[in-house]
Amino acid sequence: MNQNKIFGNWINGKEVHSGSLPFSTYNPILDQPNSGDFIEATADEVSQALEYASKDFYEFSRLSGDRRGEFLDAIAYEIEALGDDLIQTYCNETGLPEGRARGERGRTLGQLKLFADEARSGSWQMPSIDLAIPDRSPLPKADIRKVMLPLGPVAVFGASNFPLAYSTAGGDTASALAVGCPVIVKSHPMHAGTSFMVASAIVNAVHRTKMPKGIFAHLNSRDHRIGQQLATHPMVKAIGFTGSEKGGRALFDLAAQRKEPIPVFAEMGSVNPVVVFPEKLEHENDQLVQELSDSIMLGTGQFCTSPGLIFGIEGALWKSFCAQMGSSLSQRATQSMIHPNLKYAFNQMKSEQLKHAGLKTLCSMSEVNGPNHVGQSLLQLKGVDFINNPHFQHEVFGPFAIMVSCKDWEELDLAISCLKGSLTGTIMATQESLSSHVSLIEKLQHRVGRVIFNQVPTGVEVCASMQHGGPYPASTDSRFTAVGNDALLRWVRPVSFQNFPQTLLPKALQTKNSLGLDQRIKSIKK
Amino acid sequence: MNQNKIFGNWINGKEVHSGSLPFSTYNPILDQPNSGDFIEATADEVSQALEYASKDFYEFSRLSGDRRGEFLDAIAYEIEALGDDLIQTYCNETGLPEGRARGERGRTLGQLKLFADEARSGSWQMPSIDLAIPDRSPLPKADIRKVMLPLGPVAVFGASNFPLAYSTAGGDTASALAVGCPVIVKSHPMHAGTSFMVASAIVNAVHRTKMPKGIFAHLNSRDHRIGQQLATHPMVKAIGFTGSEKGGRALFDLAAQRKEPIPVFAEMGSVNPVVVFPEKLEHENDQLVQELSDSIMLGTGQFCTSPGLIFGIEGALWKSFCAQMGSSLSQRATQSMIHPNLKYAFNQMKSEQLKHAGLKTLCSMSEVNGPNHVGQSLLQLKGVDFINNPHFQHEVFGPFAIMVSCKDWEELDLAISCLKGSLTGTIMATQESLSSHVSLIEKLQHRVGRVIFNQVPTGVEVCASMQHGGPYPASTDSRFTAVGNDALLRWVRPVSFQNFPQTLLPKALQTKNSLGLDQRIKSIKK
Repeated sequence: MNQNKIFGNWINGKEVHSGSLPFSTYNPILDQPNSGDFIEATADEVSQALEYASKDFYEFSRLSGDRRGEFLDAIAYEIEALGDDLIQTYCNETGLPEGRARGERGRTLGQLKLFADEARSGSWQMPSIDLAIPDRSPLPKADIRKVMLPLGPVAVFGASNFPLAYSTAGGDTASALAVGCPVIVKSHPMHAGTSFMVASAIVNAVHRTKMPKGIFAHLNSRDHRIGQQLATHPMVKAIGFTGSEKGGRALFDLAAQRKEPIPVFAEMGSVNPVVVFPEKLEHENDQLVQELSDSIMLGTGQFCTSPGLIFGIEGALWKSFCAQMGSSLSQRATQSMIHPNLKYAFNQMKSEQLKHAGLKTLCSMSEVNGPNHVGQSLLQLKGVDFINNPHFQHEVFGPFAIMVSCKDWEELDLAISCLKGSLTGTIMATQESLSSHVSLIEKLQHRVGRVIFNQVPTGVEVCASMQHGGPYPASTDSRFTAVGNDALLRWVRPVSFQNFPQTLLPKALQTKNSLGLDQRIKSIKK
Repeated sequence: MNQNKIFGNWINGKEVHSGSLPFSTYNPILDQPNSGDFIEATADEVSQALEYASKDFYEFSRLSGDRRGEFLDAIAYEIEALGDDLIQTYCNETGLPEGRARGERGRTLGQLKLFADEARSGSWQMPSIDLAIPDRSPLPKADIRKVMLPLGPVAVFGASNFPLAYSTAGGDTASALAVGCPVIVKSHPMHAGTSFMVASAIVNAVHRTKMPKGIFAHLNSRDHRIGQQLATHPMVKAIGFTGSEKGGRALFDLAAQRKEPIPVFAEMGSVNPVVVFPEKLEHENDQLVQELSDSIMLGTGQFCTSPGLIFGIEGALWKSFCAQMGSSLSQRATQSMIHPNLKYAFNQMKSEQLKHAGLKTLCSMSEVNGPNHVGQSLLQLKGVDFINNPHFQHEVFGPFAIMVSCKDWEELDLAISCLKGSLTGTIMATQESLSSHVSLIEKLQHRVGRVIFNQVPTGVEVCASMQHGGPYPASTDSRFTAVGNDALLRWVRPVSFQNFPQTLLPKALQTKNSLGLDQRIKSIKK
């Protein structure tokens, strides 16, 4: 990456900039700005990007799944071709270790290829056919067929904590492009360089596979202005966002207040409760201390599935487990946050929590090892205090968790019942002990998107059965997932065709089924 | 129906009333109130209903599909057992003919039986299984399985225009109960008696099939107070509504402003564009005049799929067709609206439209045949005036339509492109002529929920491939349907189970598949 360059916005296949507000990214390890100036998109440029996207939407959605698959594969190829330059930029802009950067790139390429396969398979169109019954009494039944169609241009907001997998060419972008929705990316200011490079790869892929040029745009953005313009623009038909509850809710509110409201898929805050059974501690105490501490520290706690609340039943085993968790975390070196702003936010949210009565400290690192490091923290709290103060359910984004000590199962059940929505809920138990508390599974499943048995919540598998999303505030729409094959269902809606001649039906609905799809064919009782 | 009775609210299996605001319904044909007093639910009663519903949600959702199927079948049986008393009450409260009442009852019973079958089949759970790959490198893959779970208590708002099929035991209620969501019905004040009787049938079915009693409640309501309380109550997890854009939007706004926003499925206004090709008029002019006039007059135009905008290309054929449409409608007797309020609203909306420049009258009945009758109206407008004034897209609920005369295909294409969302879009054409204008299908499909070829839009088939819902303002969530089997997808969300022992998984996800469901089983590339 040429670090002395002025970096513009990608619109209609070209890099342009007419704005005058340069900003730069920050290296949290060196504690200094990275070189290179990014020029924020102007309001006119945002509008232009949407005009192009709307115009090219029809042509793009009309392309075959094979063509869109080719395009997504080409994006993966072009990102890989950026080589170590991308990895270096990623590390400079996040302070995250190189291994993490390479791992996340691998996942991003994997996602692009998965959605390329989904585009080719076309199964997302979910064709449904009700054959006509002309002799039905009292009225004949018409031939009615239903298929999924893309919504239109989608605005994607990159996440601070996953510059590749949940950003520019991440799951939102890949799944939207797979079904034929143009994508406008609002770049995250903390990793504008990584984002710019990935955007250039997408634009190269657009040219190489001869896609309509308006279907992708990438806008530099230093604050909330561009996000607000996108959320309220009549040509934006849906929004994908990963980030804080505050940011996601602001977009949700703007979108809900539009003349024509649009769906917002904001994957936001989550405290990811973990319930630890006494029987588990009897057998696997040491392993659990290790695994949970690792999970809390992973990515300096900057994971949406980072465990923030750990529930147990008071007693000698729990007491010892809490102490060991505190000591295990205290023995670890502190780590850097991605950006000084996130360090500041972590320290502020932590002090907010500590103002509330009832917390006992198990681990609190006051000295840190580097400029943007934060001290991991583990607190302890009585179940009754947790139940009575919803403030303890606020997410502290970073390495922070509270051990909630419940006096008995009844109190633990009550604590679980009053949980706000989370992405995940974990049960650490023996199979036998959980079998005698199955109501806990039932309570937890209605508060989260993914229930986990004896594994840590961090680490989200990209697969067909993944649900990444949960009741509010985990996400603004718990009926859809941000990760895995079904993520593309966020960008489509069903349309029926009644009494249509075969040749004028969408291919997915034609009886000859040239796409080889799994058509749901129903005949109705007369 | 005992017409001297005081009618209370159905809560937890009993009829109760502690309020003091009686109201009555109205017979639009006799132009006088019906006898019988309905007592509006108090705020406390609304809260009680929700407490019961929330408490019994777990037990209800845990029941087998067979048990819930038995319950839905029992509701159908109990409604049928109300016999002619129900039909008479329906007619007294709507002024609609007896044949319509019987037809709508038949459809309602059919819907209940359809959702009983869906409950038994359990296919809505859509189980998805990703098998573990323990030896995957670099990390093993966990067993992950996903299934649909019910959202929780649903508030259903009955429609004024369909006292049976879209109200108390209509599609919203039947589909929500099928998947295990308790239902709180806010009765429509215009047909409180019909609603009360149907509610009593549901309560009888609750008792007879031994359902938990809190899973159904029915609240009399004379104005917006109860609706507002329901939309903002933290225990309500979703809303089903059929009615005006104003009413649906008010509920949507309330739900979006909640601390925890909830999904609102409001099926609202729709102008249901119809495009008539010259080639169609060459061959089937007279039949089309007949069919479209019938469709405009059906139910005095009080249908959400009533055709409100009819587009054609200027020329001799179109000119003659417009004149014949006007004369056909003028020759028909006027009909009664369901309620004086709807008559008043129709006349007001009609005069609002007539204030705007460009309309020419083809039919306007000034004399009417009965007290709450309205005069059917057909207007004519130039394409350019339609394009330039979005006001002409406002729905006039009743027998009202505008013939939009476009000077050429280009103008017609532009008019279609600037349409707001509608439930349906109809193309009247020969197959050959439509084949040379396929871009029209593409434009229309992105503006509506159902595209129809050579059939009128009124009449909504209840089947698996039906999409009843469309881009805003046709509905607040175009991704779901209010009619047909898939209507139950509005009340569920996916939850994943990771690394769970077989015996602790929901039955739908167990490998032995005792429910015999169609499990999507994926193995992932290593």
